[in-house]
Amino acid sequence: MGPIPPYFDATPTGHLRIGGKEAGDWLEEGDAPLFVYSADVVRQKVARLRSEFPDRVKLHYAVKANPYRPLLEIMSEEVDGLDLASRGELDQVKGLGLPLSMAGPGKSDADLAAALKAGVTIHLESEGEAERALSLGRELSLRPQLAIRINPPFALKGAGMKMGGLASPFGVDADRVPALVRLLVEADADWRGYHIYAGSQSLSADALIESHRATLDLVRSLTEKTGKIPAEVNLGGGFGIPYFPREKELDSAAVGKALADALSDLPAEYADTRFILELGRWLVGEAGIYLTRVLDRKESHGKTFLVTDGGLHHVLAASGNFGQFLRRNYPIANTSRFSEEAQMEASVVGRLCTPLDLLGDEVMLPDTKVGDIIAIFCQGAYGLSASPTAFLGQPSAKEILNDQ
Amino acid sequence: MGPIPPYFDATPTGHLRIGGKEAGDWLEEGDAPLFVYSADVVRQKVARLRSEFPDRVKLHYAVKANPYRPLLEIMSEEVDGLDLASRGELDQVKGLGLPLSMAGPGKSDADLAAALKAGVTIHLESEGEAERALSLGRELSLRPQLAIRINPPFALKGAGMKMGGLASPFGVDADRVPALVRLLVEADADWRGYHIYAGSQSLSADALIESHRATLDLVRSLTEKTGKIPAEVNLGGGFGIPYFPREKELDSAAVGKALADALSDLPAEYADTRFILELGRWLVGEAGIYLTRVLDRKESHGKTFLVTDGGLHHVLAASGNFGQFLRRNYPIANTSRFSEEAQMEASVVGRLCTPLDLLGDEVMLPDTKVGDIIAIFCQGAYGLSASPTAFLGQPSAKEILNDQ
Repeated sequence: MGPIPPYFDATPTGHLRIGGKEAGDWLEEGDAPLFVYSADVVRQKVARLRSEFPDRVKLHYAVKANPYRPLLEIMSEEVDGLDLASRGELDQVKGLGLPLSMAGPGKSDADLAAALKAGVTIHLESEGEAERALSLGRELSLRPQLAIRINPPFALKGAGMKMGGLASPFGVDADRVPALVRLLVEADADWRGYHIYAGSQSLSADALIESHRATLDLVRSLTEKTGKIPAEVNLGGGFGIPYFPREKELDSAAVGKALADALSDLPAEYADTRFILELGRWLVGEAGIYLTRVLDRKESHGKTFLVTDGGLHHVLAASGNFGQFLRRNYPIANTSRFSEEAQMEASVVGRLCTPLDLLGDEVMLPDTKVGDIIAIFCQGAYGLSASPTAFLGQPSAKEILNDQ
Repeated sequence: MGPIPPYFDATPTGHLRIGGKEAGDWLEEGDAPLFVYSADVVRQKVARLRSEFPDRVKLHYAVKANPYRPLLEIMSEEVDGLDLASRGELDQVKGLGLPLSMAGPGKSDADLAAALKAGVTIHLESEGEAERALSLGRELSLRPQLAIRINPPFALKGAGMKMGGLASPFGVDADRVPALVRLLVEADADWRGYHIYAGSQSLSADALIESHRATLDLVRSLTEKTGKIPAEVNLGGGFGIPYFPREKELDSAAVGKALADALSDLPAEYADTRFILELGRWLVGEAGIYLTRVLDRKESHGKTFLVTDGGLHHVLAASGNFGQFLRRNYPIANTSRFSEEAQMEASVVGRLCTPLDLLGDEVMLPDTKVGDIIAIFCQGAYGLSASPTAFLGQPSAKEILNDQ
């Protein structure tokens, strides 16, 4: 299995420690599993990024990674802006008081109107959307703040998910961007700049460095064509975290140093441009742990199965059913015997009546009993909100913020 | 793409017809997509099954396929029993007044107690669960109704999902079943019989016939070992529907005829045994249509994208992200131009900001405009309830029963 994030250790009695207490102590009576998100881990990640990147790079949080409100409240004290993927997320961040932007290929008129009224920078995904946003701005007598999401002519190499260099539903092909900038400026919109997202979940510093260089080159070539300096350039995200065996932590310091160099190479006319990193998974993924209890231990044809009260209805990606081509195990542990040697091979399954509900396939664990608590790590991003919570009528999981 | 179910045709004005009206007329103002389930299709499927199978085979509905209450109310008038996968589903069927059973590998004590109190036949998944059910029965002074789910020594060939012949978290290995029967009988439980589920989503009549024969052989060999005739034998389900190109409808008549023959070959001592087919997808899958509106039509690198107000947060399986190894297109159509010739290749995507949100990859459609309604077929089973509805904060879909 992949590495357990380095923020967690054992109590003197050999349990997994979360926020100064045993993992199991976070669980109340009842059978619903629990996500615990550690504020301290989020703060450590932000502090690390601040120390590794130049001050002129602003940090935004991509709310879609985890929209749990108490986590957003912590985040709003730490970052410089929030990126939204929907009108629902706009409701979710109400009152947090940070600069907001909204991307997403399927914005309805109602979405655009809500964004206009709330002063959100809209990342336009097409010429059609631009026309609708301008028209709604006139209708509502509001000057729209509009940035252009570009479908870049390059992809983030080695990314878990590539989003550039190909035909795409996201953004506007780079060659059509200058005409769209001119249209926005002529329509007297508040044209904010560009959003360029080349991929996600990359662990390669070299790939991110190359992608940032290519992004800045693209911006300069667009400036040549339009004669306009963008007020903002959202460099996207793409910073990955290790989930699986042999995956290594991203060398974010190297990415920061290279980005500082690349920005200092820019002409002076970009001095006031706001460069933004939009991170989700990297900030919150390792902060979250999913805790579930063993309901049954059973043998079948020589294999041992540990049946838990959790399942893919809470942790779809960890079951291997969301965006993975070949299923691999997320880091998993028995929190009740965290210091004990692994001595049994078992498959950890969820409670759903489907073979898809596999949480750990033939993993090595200490001698695990009914009642023990299993932890699945790296559950702070794309966990509960990305899972089919109503499936098979099982209870949803609870969530809690550990801010100790 | 796969075949459009034969229950739907065009109106004189060239729209897809659902329940006597144009598909688009089911949609209200607003941008949330809609699932329409047609009661008539469900009734046709049940009637067909009744005509093809002998009277002594009882028909149960697997609620997990679609737990929408108005559909359950229709179903409760049509079938002989309901199979549950959770305590949540037990709440969902309250008052419908049919024999109930509950399977699932992760039943908590609270689940078992609720099933005992409601007179539900519990399908035991392990010896440990048997002990807990017996103990709770004593505690509550209730005689538990218990059947044994068997992990069969054979699999349903060609099934979308095999569930037999291997080490499994489901059921008890066949060689340990006689001892468990003796334990239940000695404990004075109401031992009901067996539940044998060898796989799901098979389109091969031969495979189902072979699986039924093997199931009956297994039951007879268990009777030899235990000396006990089961009151019930749940033969499982596994009846598939065609989703993809070159898939053909299951020849259910052939399965019915072969099962009739096999049952008539059984010794007279099985005359009172209740044989049950437990079907979900086959009964309701083709009855459901997902309707979503085109929000944007855009070009990128020579490809056309139709961006809809729906997405994988409603139809996860249709996006290819749930249980498929290679992504294939579900049947899809433009309902607003249902009679028009296909003349454009387009990729139909959802509104979520992820490349996973692909509803139709390079499909042929009529010349499709913004505002047109797209239908995805075969959405009556494992649709909304099996999808991550909270993902990216987009609104959930609505559901409606068409009983015209």
